[in-house]
Amino acid sequence: MTAQSAANQPNPSFVFQVLNSYQRTTALRAALQLDLFTAIAEGHNSVSAAATHCKATERGIRILCDFLTIVGLLTKQDGQYGLSPDAAIFLNRRSPAYIGSITDFLVRADTLDVFMDLADTIRDPQKSLSGRTAMEPENPMWVEFARAMAPLMVFPAEAIAEIVGAQSGENWKVLDIAAGHGMFGIAIAKRNPNAEIFALDWAPVLALAKENAKSAGVGARHHLLPGSFFDRDLGAGYNLVLITNFLHHFDPETNEKILKKVRAALAPGGRVVALDFVPNDDRVTPPAAAVFSMTMLGHTLAGDAYTFAEYDRMFRNAGYSSSEIRPLPGPMSVILSQAS
Amino acid sequence: MTAQSAANQPNPSFVFQVLNSYQRTTALRAALQLDLFTAIAEGHNSVSAAATHCKATERGIRILCDFLTIVGLLTKQDGQYGLSPDAAIFLNRRSPAYIGSITDFLVRADTLDVFMDLADTIRDPQKSLSGRTAMEPENPMWVEFARAMAPLMVFPAEAIAEIVGAQSGENWKVLDIAAGHGMFGIAIAKRNPNAEIFALDWAPVLALAKENAKSAGVGARHHLLPGSFFDRDLGAGYNLVLITNFLHHFDPETNEKILKKVRAALAPGGRVVALDFVPNDDRVTPPAAAVFSMTMLGHTLAGDAYTFAEYDRMFRNAGYSSSEIRPLPGPMSVILSQAS
Repeated sequence: MTAQSAANQPNPSFVFQVLNSYQRTTALRAALQLDLFTAIAEGHNSVSAAATHCKATERGIRILCDFLTIVGLLTKQDGQYGLSPDAAIFLNRRSPAYIGSITDFLVRADTLDVFMDLADTIRDPQKSLSGRTAMEPENPMWVEFARAMAPLMVFPAEAIAEIVGAQSGENWKVLDIAAGHGMFGIAIAKRNPNAEIFALDWAPVLALAKENAKSAGVGARHHLLPGSFFDRDLGAGYNLVLITNFLHHFDPETNEKILKKVRAALAPGGRVVALDFVPNDDRVTPPAAAVFSMTMLGHTLAGDAYTFAEYDRMFRNAGYSSSEIRPLPGPMSVILSQAS
Repeated sequence: MTAQSAANQPNPSFVFQVLNSYQRTTALRAALQLDLFTAIAEGHNSVSAAATHCKATERGIRILCDFLTIVGLLTKQDGQYGLSPDAAIFLNRRSPAYIGSITDFLVRADTLDVFMDLADTIRDPQKSLSGRTAMEPENPMWVEFARAMAPLMVFPAEAIAEIVGAQSGENWKVLDIAAGHGMFGIAIAKRNPNAEIFALDWAPVLALAKENAKSAGVGARHHLLPGSFFDRDLGAGYNLVLITNFLHHFDPETNEKILKKVRAALAPGGRVVALDFVPNDDRVTPPAAAVFSMTMLGHTLAGDAYTFAEYDRMFRNAGYSSSEIRPLPGPMSVILSQAS
């Protein structure tokens, strides 16, 4: 072996990096559990200061901080750690945009279990996911999810309220499907004092939506439609129907049924607004939208990150005119359609 | 909200990417279990062809292939997938450098469990890791590990044999500590027909080393020292002692004891060669070496990725002269020392 042949040896480091990626997940989760980002933001920038503040071992804090520096969530200079811009905004508990609470939902032992069986799920999702898809009725996970997602959805909810022109102040009857935390309907009600919101979701989740509506001062115009979308009467005469983070759970046939049922509940000229992860036709860009299909593969029997062409087809097959897409900053897009 | 303020909204995509990194681990693991890389290498490049060949669903294979394209292990062009250079070398089962077998060792349910408790381990490793560190005596994991690591260690083993000048053909008595698959001692025995190798490891692991020594045609010069390094007599008069992938498991004090025990077994002028992950003094570069400390944090009470300055100090404290470091291509380095 010559020096030349040694330098040309293939290097498996990248393969190892991918295989060990679970450490990125668990390191970030541990740092949030220890409230390490807040500690560093508050000036506990050395290993010993952060370890004392977080009531943890110096070796553990040092290795964790170095690892998060390599990941790109911390900086390190002369042995002092600082927050990356992303960490300062999203991971410091004192930041209004703190999203650390999402961790308990996104990184659960049962989620890791189900992803450890991913090969089986790819072979036979019915068998592999039996009894453990996200779609089990009244899965208590959805209350936890709704609570954790609320801060993250503030911006998309404001964006949708602006896109649909809520500030016009027209008399609107709005159906908020899979309302969850309720933020989408609430954002419209806040901008349009003549909007009445009808929030549909499982009852335990709606309790949270109602709480949020009251806090936002729109409780009196926020009405609850408890139950499953598929089983219950939607009411009728809606000027606007919000279908947020919902269609990705189902196959296209089911989505066409959903859209037909919604269409039957629209007032003349009524509009539908969907919010979802919508990759380009190549399905690999933009990455933050395209990777969402993996979450659906792991958790649902037939869910997906659909392209705009696929959504447009589903809407047209369900009796709508051509749709429009408005990408939002971040990974999600808004799709607008109208009964034809 | 104006278009300008929308465009300036902070984007949590990177934080989500880190939190969801477990999907990179499990997607690669699933692809290896399905032998997807081999299928693509053999020309099953479309979703339908790969799904048929891997006996899996088209939706599952499509989502998996798109995800691995985003990760960088596949390419996608006009709906046809190909292997990245790394995947072609390391993940195609027909490649001589295939390392897919390492997956069952690196990505185990019990490893994920222990990393889900990382915050507890950072607070109190004794309590958190009680009964489940990698260092339990006779842990059967080590046989599996040795078997999986063998192909990966062929190149470092050849590099060490060259660095120590095995081709000189001198009469050597070589001690191979934590021999595992035995490849380090075997590489020296192959180059030096006058080298006698004494491989030390737990008995079940040594059975594999012996098998490999016989296959390599050096079985008659490959001797076994079964048992724990800490408990057994090492013998004496060694011209060369190999300490590969071993010192990272322990604290510096323990390593100094190890090195003293080794020193007492050296022949006059005998040398010690250690192979390990050795980050720079900043502990965050090079990343592939520096991240190894996280694996030690998760699995051991006091292990670490030590810097060269730390190793040099341990060797000197144990009665050796100054050490030398030789970084190998890839994440590992060789450290050479000699009794002073």
